[in-house]
Amino acid sequence: MRMVDIIEKKRDGGELTAAEIEWFVLDYTAGNIPDYQATALMMAIFIRGMNRRETVDLTLAMARSGDQLDLRDIAPFVVDKHSSGGVGDKVSLVALPLVSACGVPVGKMSGRGLGSSGGTLDKMESFRGWTPDRTLPQFKRQLAEIGLVLTGQTVDLAPADGKLYALRDVTGTVANLSLISASIMSKKLAAGANGIVLDVKMGSGAFMSTVVQARKLAQVMVNIGNDAGRKTVALISDMNQPLGHAVGNALEVKEAIAALHGGGPSGLWAHCEEVAGRMVYLAGKADSLTAAKSMVNEVREDGRAWEKFRQLVQAQGGDVSQVDDPTKLPQAPLVEPILAPRTGVIAAMDTAAIGWTAVHLGAGRLVKEDQIDYAVGLILPKKVGDSLAAGEPLGFIHANNADKLAQARQEILTAIAWSDEPVEPLPHFYGVVE
Amino acid sequence: MRMVDIIEKKRDGGELTAAEIEWFVLDYTAGNIPDYQATALMMAIFIRGMNRRETVDLTLAMARSGDQLDLRDIAPFVVDKHSSGGVGDKVSLVALPLVSACGVPVGKMSGRGLGSSGGTLDKMESFRGWTPDRTLPQFKRQLAEIGLVLTGQTVDLAPADGKLYALRDVTGTVANLSLISASIMSKKLAAGANGIVLDVKMGSGAFMSTVVQARKLAQVMVNIGNDAGRKTVALISDMNQPLGHAVGNALEVKEAIAALHGGGPSGLWAHCEEVAGRMVYLAGKADSLTAAKSMVNEVREDGRAWEKFRQLVQAQGGDVSQVDDPTKLPQAPLVEPILAPRTGVIAAMDTAAIGWTAVHLGAGRLVKEDQIDYAVGLILPKKVGDSLAAGEPLGFIHANNADKLAQARQEILTAIAWSDEPVEPLPHFYGVVE
Repeated sequence: MRMVDIIEKKRDGGELTAAEIEWFVLDYTAGNIPDYQATALMMAIFIRGMNRRETVDLTLAMARSGDQLDLRDIAPFVVDKHSSGGVGDKVSLVALPLVSACGVPVGKMSGRGLGSSGGTLDKMESFRGWTPDRTLPQFKRQLAEIGLVLTGQTVDLAPADGKLYALRDVTGTVANLSLISASIMSKKLAAGANGIVLDVKMGSGAFMSTVVQARKLAQVMVNIGNDAGRKTVALISDMNQPLGHAVGNALEVKEAIAALHGGGPSGLWAHCEEVAGRMVYLAGKADSLTAAKSMVNEVREDGRAWEKFRQLVQAQGGDVSQVDDPTKLPQAPLVEPILAPRTGVIAAMDTAAIGWTAVHLGAGRLVKEDQIDYAVGLILPKKVGDSLAAGEPLGFIHANNADKLAQARQEILTAIAWSDEPVEPLPHFYGVVE
Repeated sequence: MRMVDIIEKKRDGGELTAAEIEWFVLDYTAGNIPDYQATALMMAIFIRGMNRRETVDLTLAMARSGDQLDLRDIAPFVVDKHSSGGVGDKVSLVALPLVSACGVPVGKMSGRGLGSSGGTLDKMESFRGWTPDRTLPQFKRQLAEIGLVLTGQTVDLAPADGKLYALRDVTGTVANLSLISASIMSKKLAAGANGIVLDVKMGSGAFMSTVVQARKLAQVMVNIGNDAGRKTVALISDMNQPLGHAVGNALEVKEAIAALHGGGPSGLWAHCEEVAGRMVYLAGKADSLTAAKSMVNEVREDGRAWEKFRQLVQAQGGDVSQVDDPTKLPQAPLVEPILAPRTGVIAAMDTAAIGWTAVHLGAGRLVKEDQIDYAVGLILPKKVGDSLAAGEPLGFIHANNADKLAQARQEILTAIAWSDEPVEPLPHFYGVVE
């Protein structure tokens, strides 16, 4: 095969064969195709598009470009989740122990914060000593022993994706549904997931700003999963305000522990119950989604989910005394309320801006080398539709420095829009794609 | 400016500003923009297109990317020609001396053969000792002294084009009218042409296979020339059969000398008279095209054009005894007729295949390092529409090797289609774009 022929075919709107796609992905990963030719193809795909079959073939080829995890010995049905990223999204911290406590082993490879979105690994590292670094034998042993493991990329999953993404990032070829979907799903397929629950965020804090866009992306990913023989379902969920109240690593961990204890914000619980229920149902542990959600509530109420979370912290070197007494988690020296500047109703929140405020406080990284301050962040209990009187606290800033605190206050006030009229509260979900 | 912003703008069908185009061209030429980003933009331009203003701005930026020739001291009005390439195209050898003899100084930078098309410099090198290598001062001195000079790229004309073309060649982004036109015209503008006659070929031996395509390309190039303030005209000419009878370097030189002496094939003269007449008219040496053509015929008849050609050979180190007696030019050891395999009318000629036959005989290069045999080639006096009896010679092969001769005979017979019915002869031109 000749790369130029493949480029020209797609350039002119043609349909690539599975063999052409596989040849390109594997030869590009092997370093046999130069970046400039790969870019030409990415741009042609971006503009001309890929049909459903091509998108599945691209995803499968990328999944086959590196290691492929096989956990069948340990877990007969592997279930995974993916969030498209958001602010205050601590759902994995709650849902994974719930699912594991329902008898579905969960071995998840997760990521770090990116831009205004936090990362699950960063949050877990709020626990003194906890590490996401596990070798593959350690990963498998822990999965077999406690049914729950959470790591970074322990094996070389879909290296084609890493290489292509780095190229797309600097050549204006990121925002294409087929390419985004193949990037996400290739890693899920390589990780051996039999069932996948996708949490596709929509709104001011998400990559997709409308329900229509989010639904399109969800549909492409669900199609890939189903065509690749994996049970896949996508939730279209709200990211027009932070998920739960807490934004920032230890603050979110505390909120997650509260949720596992039966407390925490009701919106967060609604979200975790839905995701965990879907995962348990996909894994065949319940006859219906309703029954799966009942199981999820049961393991929450009887403490088994919290116990599972405790085991996860302990097994990976974390200080369990901080699980037992979350006040021992990192605590910021400065905590001050943000007072409502006027009487009114919260009409809208610029959620990405709120995420960036947490990053500016030190909860995330502006450059890769930045150290995270696990203690800092925001508590924002007031939601869109809530009424406040002037001077009433709408939230709290946890900071390590007075200047940063003052800046954060200004940013949060700028990120909130007010109304004199009543405003409908936001839904948690906009729909399901399956 | 950020390259990604420019890529994304064109990717989404936007219009690039002159400043964006200039920044890209100059920074890419300087090595500050990586090939993979340049390719992304080339593919976006290929698919989304460029409007007339963008195409002119791209051409101007490429023309400014290197040296820009200024010949105003020597030639008040510089006139240039460009052929899109064909088989047997020795028009420059005839037309340039004609134009120069009419009092219009011609300083032309020309090219070598490419694929099935011959190159003017290769043809001139049939003369013992002749060289296209001139320094810029030598170029200017010769232009001032005899009004005619023919060289390779003496100065670094439009280096952006060379760099971009090499990239486009391997990324499926060659065949776009704006990019092709900018590539050709940037060098003409940088060479300081005030007037340009474009000879756009159409047919089985040309890049453009239909009149519609050739006319589109011609229109884009004429628009660029006119918008850049140069008088530009394009001829759409036939390349469905070789131009003239001779294909191969010394054979073509002999035919050109015959044409300058008042002989040679009538079709070749019709072509040279038109091109030279247009050049003389553009340069303002005549009040009408008809008057310009009369001048051209006059300098042919009184021997001044031939004398100018002789001066060109002599001034650049060539053996003028070969001009005076063309039988002294390289002569192939084997010359054999190609006999008509049947009685009938020539219906069509695969002109590119005929060009490749000449290359296979040794008249051109398959790889850059190949040595040319100046003697070899084809004489094909029979044209589309001509009737032949079986066994009548339709042409002659000049070869240096019996195997190559046999192969060439086979190739030529395969390249010709026959008819039992009368066939219309082909026109020389299909129209003019100005």
